[in-house]
Amino acid sequence: MRRLLDRFNTPEAVFHAPMKELSKIEGLGEKVVQEIRKGPLEKVVERELSLLREVGGRVITLKDEEYPKRLRDIYDPPALLYVRGELKKEDEFAISIVGSRKTTPYGRWFTEKVSQELARHGVTIVSGMARGIDSLAHWGAISGGGRTIAVLGCGVDVIYPSENRNLFAKIIDRGAILSEFPMGSPPEGGHFPRRNRIISGLSLGVVVVQASEKSGSLITAGYALEQGREVFAVPGNVGTESSRGTHRLIKEGAKLVESSEDILEEILPQWRGERETTPKVEIPRPDLTEEEKVLYELLSETPLHIDVMIRESRMDPGKVSSLLLNLELKGMVSQWPGKCFSKKM
Amino acid sequence: MRRLLDRFNTPEAVFHAPMKELSKIEGLGEKVVQEIRKGPLEKVVERELSLLREVGGRVITLKDEEYPKRLRDIYDPPALLYVRGELKKEDEFAISIVGSRKTTPYGRWFTEKVSQELARHGVTIVSGMARGIDSLAHWGAISGGGRTIAVLGCGVDVIYPSENRNLFAKIIDRGAILSEFPMGSPPEGGHFPRRNRIISGLSLGVVVVQASEKSGSLITAGYALEQGREVFAVPGNVGTESSRGTHRLIKEGAKLVESSEDILEEILPQWRGERETTPKVEIPRPDLTEEEKVLYELLSETPLHIDVMIRESRMDPGKVSSLLLNLELKGMVSQWPGKCFSKKM
Repeated sequence: MRRLLDRFNTPEAVFHAPMKELSKIEGLGEKVVQEIRKGPLEKVVERELSLLREVGGRVITLKDEEYPKRLRDIYDPPALLYVRGELKKEDEFAISIVGSRKTTPYGRWFTEKVSQELARHGVTIVSGMARGIDSLAHWGAISGGGRTIAVLGCGVDVIYPSENRNLFAKIIDRGAILSEFPMGSPPEGGHFPRRNRIISGLSLGVVVVQASEKSGSLITAGYALEQGREVFAVPGNVGTESSRGTHRLIKEGAKLVESSEDILEEILPQWRGERETTPKVEIPRPDLTEEEKVLYELLSETPLHIDVMIRESRMDPGKVSSLLLNLELKGMVSQWPGKCFSKKM
Repeated sequence: MRRLLDRFNTPEAVFHAPMKELSKIEGLGEKVVQEIRKGPLEKVVERELSLLREVGGRVITLKDEEYPKRLRDIYDPPALLYVRGELKKEDEFAISIVGSRKTTPYGRWFTEKVSQELARHGVTIVSGMARGIDSLAHWGAISGGGRTIAVLGCGVDVIYPSENRNLFAKIIDRGAILSEFPMGSPPEGGHFPRRNRIISGLSLGVVVVQASEKSGSLITAGYALEQGREVFAVPGNVGTESSRGTHRLIKEGAKLVESSEDILEEILPQWRGERETTPKVEIPRPDLTEEEKVLYELLSETPLHIDVMIRESRMDPGKVSSLLLNLELKGMVSQWPGKCFSKKM
């Protein structure tokens, strides 16, 4: 699909392209060329769109502005994404957290904690909404007041596992549900490996919390490597089935993760590098008022959420907002996605 | 001391050297030169040797054949080693296992298991006989039927901690107790970091099982790096104090260890490289008798102890010995230190 769009620019042009031109496209067999020549299956498309509208969703394509920039960069981005909820610019600052369906109390504790902490620092948490680690990653982001994206191996109108009904609604409210599979697609086994390339593709890096040696999370980690994204793995006691996969990843070069700081340390420089394309000018440090100083002292290189600053400074929210604006104007503070702030480097 | 011996060859010659020659030695201040000129403190030396004889020990020096080859290679090998028990050629195939005094059931389980398995494969286990991981490493080696060496931070006549009286005697029986400190030296805090360079210096690599962030085991790991030895660290659940140090080591490049195989895989090629200095000649595989085949099939690349082969083949010990000799003569099997055998590569 991407090659067709690259060549003919619009879907309409693809359907009107002469057979000879179509046959020149790499990877397009005779059968597919014949199907394209039949023209779009308008009834199917209309039914699909109407089903999607019914649940308040929409389709975005590789050609849309809204299509996630990071996902567009991978080798085989989906041409169409079914979306429920909202994708925001700030979701580019994303980390995927994945792991086994079968978990231990240790894995559950770690997932919720780290997901929550990352969300507090303005990181969007991406996962697959599976039972176990995935679901806990989404819940952690929500309880941390942040954003979260679920990529499904079924249609965006299929809630699987069904126990996640409540979580499903929350994610639509606080992020987005995505899928490349048509409406009503069941959660077939074969869908999940393909789905995993989108999970890693949306993020700066993948954190594998618990994984047996055959876990699908290792596939996600493999895609991350292929896509040039970071791979993080959480250690655990030797002899636990759920640590075998993560230990294998660490032996193969994944970064051992003990805390959200370990992750932020890796991804912040990269994220800053992407954002700061204009050269910095050295400016003398301006004088700060006493109140500005109090707030400035709370900050570090790592972005902090405004609510934390409000709590810790014991000033009222309006006051903190206006002081932060002053500090930003004075060039002392950087704003980050998700109402987070850090000292300007 | 090493520089003095390098220059004058024997201690006698050092004591008879003219002041002018002594002053030329790098690192020798005026005070030390004057002390040397006074001649040996014969009474002190005699008392020391008599104390050592009383407990059945002896001194070996850098100039002795028996001095551990691997230890001689480090930057600052001790000039004298007090020894109780025996040092053997096969102790060159050694791994150090160290860790915290404070342990968890997990750490204790892992230490005994891995130490026992390595000992079964003919590896001599080196440690510091401290409470906790160190003591368990020695016990593991003993229960695995192998050899073990303890390097003390006190005199070889001081049993510390005193609860290790039984272990102390076993180590003398199944390996050696070493120290560079004079007889009767108490276990002073300052001795331990120095002692640690000997632990790492004796071995191909150091395994750190559990370590807090301030553990002395991290000093041993640091020496190992300096000395060009492998560093292995055992992961554990995040949030456990005793895994902080080992996780730090892994982040800094230590190899994550889950099993004795992980360690053998790293050190066997190096050990083989050291042993196989003569070029190998390709020889056709000779015919084997049925009994030889049974034994050969039990073997792999990893050395296996003869007792295991006796047990698994259900042949009697004399039979197994003579079959192994045949296989070795036919060039099919390699013998390893500690009565272990592997397929010839």
